[in-house]
Amino acid sequence: MPKIINATPALPLILAGFGHVGRAFFALLQEKAPSLLGRYGLRLSLRAILRSGGGFFSAEEESLDLLSPELSSIPRHEYSAHPLWKPGLDLAQVVSRLDPGVLVLATTSDLKTGEPGLSLCRHALDSGWHVVMADKAPLVLAFSALQEKARQKRVHLKFSGATAAALPALDLGLYSLAGAEILGLEGILNGTTNFILTEMGKGRSYAESLAIAQGRGIAEPDPSRDVSGWDTAIKLLLLGRAVMDVPITLDDIAVEGITGLSAEFVVRVTNEGKKVKLVGRLERPARASVRPEILNPDHPLFPVDGTNKAIVFTTDTMGIISVSGGKSDPRGAAAALLKDILHVVS
Amino acid sequence: MPKIINATPALPLILAGFGHVGRAFFALLQEKAPSLLGRYGLRLSLRAILRSGGGFFSAEEESLDLLSPELSSIPRHEYSAHPLWKPGLDLAQVVSRLDPGVLVLATTSDLKTGEPGLSLCRHALDSGWHVVMADKAPLVLAFSALQEKARQKRVHLKFSGATAAALPALDLGLYSLAGAEILGLEGILNGTTNFILTEMGKGRSYAESLAIAQGRGIAEPDPSRDVSGWDTAIKLLLLGRAVMDVPITLDDIAVEGITGLSAEFVVRVTNEGKKVKLVGRLERPARASVRPEILNPDHPLFPVDGTNKAIVFTTDTMGIISVSGGKSDPRGAAAALLKDILHVVS
Repeated sequence: MPKIINATPALPLILAGFGHVGRAFFALLQEKAPSLLGRYGLRLSLRAILRSGGGFFSAEEESLDLLSPELSSIPRHEYSAHPLWKPGLDLAQVVSRLDPGVLVLATTSDLKTGEPGLSLCRHALDSGWHVVMADKAPLVLAFSALQEKARQKRVHLKFSGATAAALPALDLGLYSLAGAEILGLEGILNGTTNFILTEMGKGRSYAESLAIAQGRGIAEPDPSRDVSGWDTAIKLLLLGRAVMDVPITLDDIAVEGITGLSAEFVVRVTNEGKKVKLVGRLERPARASVRPEILNPDHPLFPVDGTNKAIVFTTDTMGIISVSGGKSDPRGAAAALLKDILHVVS
Repeated sequence: MPKIINATPALPLILAGFGHVGRAFFALLQEKAPSLLGRYGLRLSLRAILRSGGGFFSAEEESLDLLSPELSSIPRHEYSAHPLWKPGLDLAQVVSRLDPGVLVLATTSDLKTGEPGLSLCRHALDSGWHVVMADKAPLVLAFSALQEKARQKRVHLKFSGATAAALPALDLGLYSLAGAEILGLEGILNGTTNFILTEMGKGRSYAESLAIAQGRGIAEPDPSRDVSGWDTAIKLLLLGRAVMDVPITLDDIAVEGITGLSAEFVVRVTNEGKKVKLVGRLERPARASVRPEILNPDHPLFPVDGTNKAIVFTTDTMGIISVSGGKSDPRGAAAALLKDILHVVS
């Protein structure tokens, strides 16, 4: 039965980033407003949307909500003509005009600098705002510092959307396994490479499989971060630090991607009744790897094909628990952001 | 990173029921005391163990904890000689002498009356105690009334251990899918029948497979509640009410067990590359069934063999999410009880 929260004044939200995930979150807020009120007694009020160069801001509680279809559809070069667009608007200005709420960080930040997400996250936490984020880079670069800041300020920092979108990998590790010790975790954490490997198992070459993935919008035009294994490594890092409290950095992870695999090898393994999967693996005290592994049919990750992802936790008291599936599109990431907001306020 | 709770006075616990699950919980409390303190800043103090006819009770905070190995090993007929055993001790007496804490309900109650668990649960809630339970019957008979009572008294009523032991089916539905609408759920919720069906898929008869399960302690000497499908139906009922808020009763579930399946049929299905599984299924508005189903290889429940269990949720925003595994032995159930306690206090 859903938890009932007493009706309260609307919770202010600021959305930073208005790309695929940001827009999906924006649409989801509209779609879910009635059920959030009905099931959780919760009203969310989006007060600002920040992009580089400025943002939309409304001094009134419901203005942005009401304008949503319009905001989502206008092209960027026409923002300046919109009455709510404020050139040069930044987070500090918005925060100074609102009661604390939740910053929804849907930026795509640079992995070397963590920007723009890192500064936004820091500023929000310093100002007593909760942060829920789908942006990975700030966490990769400053995991402990951001956690510590959130603790000092007694606010929540949540990042389900940054680890595996709608696949509840963090929830499982932090909430469902509370009290158990996680001895190790292993996962298929990248849908693009899993799709490519599944196609290669049918006899296609790597290039052919990649082309199919790109044709369907599964792989990006530059797929290097996925196929090199680094996207998996980044997610493994965040999961390991969050749920196993293992202080690894990217340098500690032995990373091997899938580009070196021949179709012949993948088919031979498949014909033997096994499968090749790109597995991220973390064991205590701190042994971490990302590499193609040959899985037997009884391995919990064996049935995970196509764009699906999954993660397996080995515990001391609860046995082995796997979770798989979950949309990895922008709507799935948006749903993960919304879930984190619900956990912040409940 | 585990949530840090400020060091507080020890939380009083009362354990009702001292069978397999109760004893496993008792042992787990000892084993986990250091990590509960270290990771969560939590001290649990077991103050009473209630059985029919009396109970162990200590007026001092740590007496029962310190005596644990002894308490677990003495046979029942020697209780009366133990200095902490109080004949006739009941919950009302214990509750009247303690600050409110958590009742851990590890009784095995009658499905027709819900007793003794139902009265214990009611009395604890009425007295302002939280309840975490592994006992199903009180919930089957009085789900809404108990939930309502907990709400009125502003205490928690948790029952992870009653639905699927360490498999986090309730957590997933209530916590990880927060904000999403669960359109339907389906699960393999009984390890005994799944084991028998897996054996039958290898060509064994039902009787042979059951005998193997009994030989390994997987099936009980009287396996009727499992093989008839009613254990699955009970778990489906609890899950449906808790996570989908569907007001079904056992009468609303069409239940068919596995005793009517011939080995020939199961083998034929297996030879076609499919599997026969006992599936509990719930769809909105309120269509519920438990019956053997033929699953294709791409079904998320297809790979779940042997004593494993799994549940699949179909949602509006997060896609399809499955969770599988998790110990279903007394230690797994005890770990689920401990997890629920952590959620109550955090």
